Amino acid sequence: MAMDTGAFLSKLEMVTTSDHSSVVSMNLFVALLCACIVIGHLLEENRWMNESITALAIGLGTGIVILLTTGGKSSHLLVFSEDLFFIYLLPPIIFNAGFQVKKKQFFRNFMTIMLFGAVGTLISFAIISLGAIHFFQKMNIGSLKIGDILAIGAIFSATDSVCTLQVLNQDETPLLYSLVFGEGVVNDATSVVLFNAIQSFDLYHIDSVIALQFIGSFLYLFITSTMLGVLAGLLSAFMIKKLYFGRHSTDREVALMILMAYLSYMLAELFYLSAILTVFFCGIVMSHYTWHNVTESSRVTTKHAFATLSFVAEIFIFLYVGMDALDIDKWRFISDSPGKSVGVSSILLGLVLVGRAAFVFPLSFLSNLTKNSPHDRISLKQQVTIWWAGLMRGAVSMALAYNQFTRSGHTQLHLNAIMITSTISVVLFSTVVRNHFISL
Amino acid sequence: MAMDTGAFLSKLEMVTTSDHSSVVSMNLFVALLCACIVIGHLLEENRWMNESITALAIGLGTGIVILLTTGGKSSHLLVFSEDLFFIYLLPPIIFNAGFQVKKKQFFRNFMTIMLFGAVGTLISFAIISLGAIHFFQKMNIGSLKIGDILAIGAIFSATDSVCTLQVLNQDETPLLYSLVFGEGVVNDATSVVLFNAIQSFDLYHIDSVIALQFIGSFLYLFITSTMLGVLAGLLSAFMIKKLYFGRHSTDREVALMILMAYLSYMLAELFYLSAILTVFFCGIVMSHYTWHNVTESSRVTTKHAFATLSFVAEIFIFLYVGMDALDIDKWRFISDSPGKSVGVSSILLGLVLVGRAAFVFPLSFLSNLTKNSPHDRISLKQQVTIWWAGLMRGAVSMALAYNQFTRSGHTQLHLNAIMITSTISVVLFSTVVRNHFISL
Repeated sequence: MAMDTGAFLSKLEMVTTSDHSSVVSMNLFVALLCACIVIGHLLEENRWMNESITALAIGLGTGIVILLTTGGKSSHLLVFSEDLFFIYLLPPIIFNAGFQVKKKQFFRNFMTIMLFGAVGTLISFAIISLGAIHFFQKMNIGSLKIGDILAIGAIFSATDSVCTLQVLNQDETPLLYSLVFGEGVVNDATSVVLFNAIQSFDLYHIDSVIALQFIGSFLYLFITSTMLGVLAGLLSAFMIKKLYFGRHSTDREVALMILMAYLSYMLAELFYLSAILTVFFCGIVMSHYTWHNVTESSRVTTKHAFATLSFVAEIFIFLYVGMDALDIDKWRFISDSPGKSVGVSSILLGLVLVGRAAFVFPLSFLSNLTKNSPHDRISLKQQVTIWWAGLMRGAVSMALAYNQFTRSGHTQLHLNAIMITSTISVVLFSTVVRNHFISL
Repeated sequence: MAMDTGAFLSKLEMVTTSDHSSVVSMNLFVALLCACIVIGHLLEENRWMNESITALAIGLGTGIVILLTTGGKSSHLLVFSEDLFFIYLLPPIIFNAGFQVKKKQFFRNFMTIMLFGAVGTLISFAIISLGAIHFFQKMNIGSLKIGDILAIGAIFSATDSVCTLQVLNQDETPLLYSLVFGEGVVNDATSVVLFNAIQSFDLYHIDSVIALQFIGSFLYLFITSTMLGVLAGLLSAFMIKKLYFGRHSTDREVALMILMAYLSYMLAELFYLSAILTVFFCGIVMSHYTWHNVTESSRVTTKHAFATLSFVAEIFIFLYVGMDALDIDKWRFISDSPGKSVGVSSILLGLVLVGRAAFVFPLSFLSNLTKNSPHDRISLKQQVTIWWAGLMRGAVSMALAYNQFTRSGHTQLHLNAIMITSTISVVLFSTVVRNHFISL
């Protein structure tokens, strides 16, 4: 056939090993993904393991093998890019979460989720930023600009919703799942507003006008992002209902749903909105309206195809993170000043714990005041789980922190190394105590 | 949430318009894909239109708009790369063709398909190469090396199986579909062997030893590629049956099937085999064995998810080709010597016609001798259709020729421009007479 002919010609033309070595890594990566699925399934009944930890472990193992065979030069198979992550891996995960979320549970707790996601994140942000300024000056770890400190505050005050999906189970703990995951989605909007504020407002002169501006821009961002997702969902429902009336085509319906959901995500990126919020609400609306207008086979296909996409994307991330954890540069950096690194990561972890405690318990108390039936209230045990589950820093935070902080100067590289060591500890630790959560 | 935070930071950090403009193009491209699906569906009952032509037309329209808005600088939205095509778009199309092919029909005509794909392609290759040498010397279009001429022969002697899928309908003309599409898949292996031969054998001294070597390497390539695909398919069936016995998980099954199929394609690329042949047979085996070992919902999901992937990939190609057709450089080049371009493309088209006629009719006659029932024989009308349908040069050939010939020198650029003008004419023409085929 004409096409492969050309592929072959180009292969002969280049004769570059770089092209062929990228084929080698893709093969290895796909084979490892298969291995993760099979081994993860076999280990499913083991209470200490799940697919993410399997992927993490296999990634670590592969990293070690690659390190040894390349003589310590590299532990990577693929170069991780932010684009790959934010444009291809994250959208299916968040969309599927919206698509499969228990809507009744989610909307019943909507006010509590908003409280946690908006007010709670601000409280946490303030505490972490102030604490970081206080402790880092004492530790003398180099000159950190006020913007850097606030960025740390913003990154650490936000929960990692992909990790939450791994830790909490929707069927076993529906209330906790909707609260913690919902908070993760809503506080994405808060983070975007926070970063806007850090960049554009004069932070040394905070007065009531700026506070109002801040609230205004949060509401604007939250409402526009949500509306965009809802509109995309409704539009897909309308198109499928109106245009395809009388003659359905499963392939076209499924393709339209996927493309419209993806379009909503990319449009939100285009207008600097919170793409996560948009695609999450798009998923909710699609599962509520569009899904009921398609054929039976489209329903089965979308339900499983979206779950599969999200499943593979998650494994992909964990596999990568496992390999990335061995990146030799990071460890070399840490080994220069191990004491300081442990100190900084403990302080950050401590601040995150205090910051979350400072809003989970008071806001849960407030939320409980508005509930009449004791069934709807958040018990103290559940509050502890929310406090703890929101601490999870998983693949996403790690990949992000890595991509975020390596571009700038020396201090950042140090922070990066610290971020990664603390993240790996937290991810491993949180999975070990995972079954404890579920029994709560 | 921590992640979008970072996306936002990075946006602020870069402030580059290039990054944002790529988001703009992705939005536009996804929106255009949606438009193609909706408009293609609306126009479905129009006998002159189908989804590919809609995509081609929308691509052309968008190309014009972009040309006008950028002041004639560019008609592209995305930069087309061979990688994008061979690593992401082609595998789902060929795999789905194998997955949905009518196996009974395919294997009943297996010998005829092999005759067409192997012997036929060689006859066609010889005629086109010899004809090109003869006519191009007379026309004085610049110095073409013997290797270039043979490359042209190899590219033009191979049919474009993606285009065949668009032109022939499996349900309406099962015999023709299996013959023409099967030929397209098998002659991929022939092409790879041909290119190998062009590179490694001394073509001025062809004797019986070289001919035997050639046959040997074709058989080796065909058998190894097929076996790899069959093995990957059987392995997936075995894994799903053995490991998942008693507790099925639809998401895992679907993910494993997709990943294993993709792995077979990439492994074939790795070992310089015919990846198209491999993934095609992997699709056949998966639909025959694996598919019967999975849950009912996995069956529905895979059937439609694979078809959807293939459908979107095809539209993507046609949309791109539509935009690419307006690439200003190509037309500028042609306008320097319009007479010569028309001459070369007519000669090539004529050679392709003669080359196909030289094997379709004799080989069909041979094939008919072996068939007992008149029902299985290839009628003269069907022979004409096979002759004609194999001429189709679609999106794939075009994208390929473009990517292939622009790298090298001046002559190649000229050939490229000619390829594209003739391809567009053939694609449009073949679609207009599409309904005529089906009525045959």
